[in-house]
Amino acid sequence: MKMDTRSKALAAQKAFHKLSSADADLKNAALAAIERELRSRAAIIFEANAQDLAAAKSDNLPAPLQKRLKFDEEKLAEVCAGLESLRTIEDPVGRIISARELDEGLELYQVACPIGVIGVIFESRPDALVQISSLCLKSGNAVLLKGGSEASNTNRALADAIAEAARSVAVPDGWIQLLETRTEIGEMLKLDSYVDLIIPRGSNEFVKYIMDNTNIHVLGHADGICHAYIHSDADKEKAAKIIVDSKTQYVAVCNALETLLVHRDIAKEALPLLKKELEGAGVLLKGCDITREFIDVDAAGGDDWETEYLDLVLSIKVVDGFSDAVDHINTHGSHHTDTIITEDRNTAERFMDSVDSANVFFNCSTRFSDGYRYGLGAEVGIGTGKVHARGPVGIEGLLIYKWKLYGDGQIVADYSGPNAKRFTHRSITDA
Amino acid sequence: MKMDTRSKALAAQKAFHKLSSADADLKNAALAAIERELRSRAAIIFEANAQDLAAAKSDNLPAPLQKRLKFDEEKLAEVCAGLESLRTIEDPVGRIISARELDEGLELYQVACPIGVIGVIFESRPDALVQISSLCLKSGNAVLLKGGSEASNTNRALADAIAEAARSVAVPDGWIQLLETRTEIGEMLKLDSYVDLIIPRGSNEFVKYIMDNTNIHVLGHADGICHAYIHSDADKEKAAKIIVDSKTQYVAVCNALETLLVHRDIAKEALPLLKKELEGAGVLLKGCDITREFIDVDAAGGDDWETEYLDLVLSIKVVDGFSDAVDHINTHGSHHTDTIITEDRNTAERFMDSVDSANVFFNCSTRFSDGYRYGLGAEVGIGTGKVHARGPVGIEGLLIYKWKLYGDGQIVADYSGPNAKRFTHRSITDA
Repeated sequence: MKMDTRSKALAAQKAFHKLSSADADLKNAALAAIERELRSRAAIIFEANAQDLAAAKSDNLPAPLQKRLKFDEEKLAEVCAGLESLRTIEDPVGRIISARELDEGLELYQVACPIGVIGVIFESRPDALVQISSLCLKSGNAVLLKGGSEASNTNRALADAIAEAARSVAVPDGWIQLLETRTEIGEMLKLDSYVDLIIPRGSNEFVKYIMDNTNIHVLGHADGICHAYIHSDADKEKAAKIIVDSKTQYVAVCNALETLLVHRDIAKEALPLLKKELEGAGVLLKGCDITREFIDVDAAGGDDWETEYLDLVLSIKVVDGFSDAVDHINTHGSHHTDTIITEDRNTAERFMDSVDSANVFFNCSTRFSDGYRYGLGAEVGIGTGKVHARGPVGIEGLLIYKWKLYGDGQIVADYSGPNAKRFTHRSITDA
Repeated sequence: MKMDTRSKALAAQKAFHKLSSADADLKNAALAAIERELRSRAAIIFEANAQDLAAAKSDNLPAPLQKRLKFDEEKLAEVCAGLESLRTIEDPVGRIISARELDEGLELYQVACPIGVIGVIFESRPDALVQISSLCLKSGNAVLLKGGSEASNTNRALADAIAEAARSVAVPDGWIQLLETRTEIGEMLKLDSYVDLIIPRGSNEFVKYIMDNTNIHVLGHADGICHAYIHSDADKEKAAKIIVDSKTQYVAVCNALETLLVHRDIAKEALPLLKKELEGAGVLLKGCDITREFIDVDAAGGDDWETEYLDLVLSIKVVDGFSDAVDHINTHGSHHTDTIITEDRNTAERFMDSVDSANVFFNCSTRFSDGYRYGLGAEVGIGTGKVHARGPVGIEGLLIYKWKLYGDGQIVADYSGPNAKRFTHRSITDA
């Protein structure tokens, strides 16, 4: 019998209530069991993947999508390496964030703990399913997973293997649930009593749709309109190098550069060099009226300032100064990644404090904003929201905290009224 | 000309983009100016309050509400003391959360920063306006404030004084905006491009309404169904003392006890003592069928397990054991505050790890869950959500972080491909 979405979410929540107190050994044993099970079921998984690939081919899905869909020996080796590396990291649950004595014998600890049930909607790559579910397991969370429908056979085979492996070492059943239809996504978005966090990965339109249609907190980014601002005192060779990398190193990603702002005082000197370097790298340039006084490029219109090209196209605007640049970014940007090129560290500090984005850079490429480059370990997602977690988010984004208070019979009445005992509120340092 | 809600939110956002980079001195000067201005406008503020009090009296508002509405010399002294104490705390903006060298000369800092525009809907006490707006200012956030309509004259007088004082020391104008009608609340809930966090304080029904009607993250709690669980090995005198305090020390608050769970093996011994102590404190008891085998109390029905009495009423259930107690709390509770009474620390640890609540206690009263008792300084609110901030939330709840990357011309292309440079990912400890 098929479970409905609500029953799946309820089962996940019930499992979470047990998994949240699982110790590191159990979770690591489960990660090892998953690795073994994936290897031993390799033939079954590859067969399921062959079915998905055949269907994708006969449906004439675009070649890049067919490529991402592939789950072969190489992908299996990659996900197994990921599982192994996850096993070696310290258990993030139970980390003490703060510790304070309220009074003698009454001690308060703020302790990291899992969030609950995480709903993840991911792209066509089936290896994402293994990565996401193992991160949720390691952090003590239950997970509802919805992958691309074109990968449904592979996802089912992977999820079955993972569930069975976890069960074999006595991880509470139900912590991993596969959603298999688009309808189920809509149902999940309404289950705010059961689902605590939604992580959508996919097209901008899709992420925006998710954000607009749920009360549940969404960790994600709908747009990546990233800026570089060349200040009047910038080194123009350094600027050109950073701009070319930010724009062209990989164009189809959210941290690629989309708009270049140039200080009026350096425009005449810098723009011709930038044009040469960028056009040399195959970039089509569009500029504001002032830009076009200095270099011969297409005209940029109002829409350009809010367009994520994800292509070899760059819009350029000459600004009157620092404040003008910051205003433009805060008005037209998407709070993702913005960089300043300047030789003055104070100007850079002001830029980084004033630009309201998750990642604010000084003299380096926007392309650095990424969980791997940041050294965060596996990336859960990239968030441009303003609460919980922001920028590239690692396993920390799957955690919250609880307050644990240890006493021996203390009551509040003793700390109230005319003869009230006083709180000591002393930091506990050697916790 | 009156501004509409959207214009107010936009003005607040624009002010935030300047305020976010204000240094500690400016913000502290503003707090001092606010204190001076409130004192110098005391007569105007008390006059405005007299109008509100007269209207409340002629409208026959309940006496406790009339009492809360009062803003007199004593309240003025209180808010001024609060402003002074806020001035002395370290600037929370700019605190380094983590620091990592990605490569030589390429350094990543995760730095605390304000969130943006905070929407606060608060109860009838006008002193809350001063407390909330000063916390927002100290943390570099802009704020939309909606107080109780019965306090509208006082709120207007206070907000005017605060805005004018901040302006006098050159804090960017527009950071504090007063909403004055209920319609404006509904409009604010839709402004997810401008408002980043909503903090509703008020009745449960009202908070629940807010949570159900916005995409913006809400920091708050709709219910406070708190539990105590008496384990089989508990010291029954200690238990009775804790239960009486949790239930009766102040009944009308969210951290008061509503349901008592008693292990079957101690029920016979503990329940008569509890009945004596609780009835002696004026508490009406309602019990499950098994409870009523041991003591003569009213019957508790299904609704009782999910009722926040906020009154001298307590429901009692005898449970089969530890797991049964935890299941009951996770199913019927509101993730607020739950306490276990036991002589075994391991059992307490298991309870605190398994109960999915913001505050989980061992051998002490549920009434301790409070920002003042926790030593957090001024309390922004109490959250029962699962992301961002949880439990009693101090000024930390008004902060998020951004990633600042300092380079000197680094590009990602150098870290890719066959001759890729390697990241060092070394922790920077003496930041």
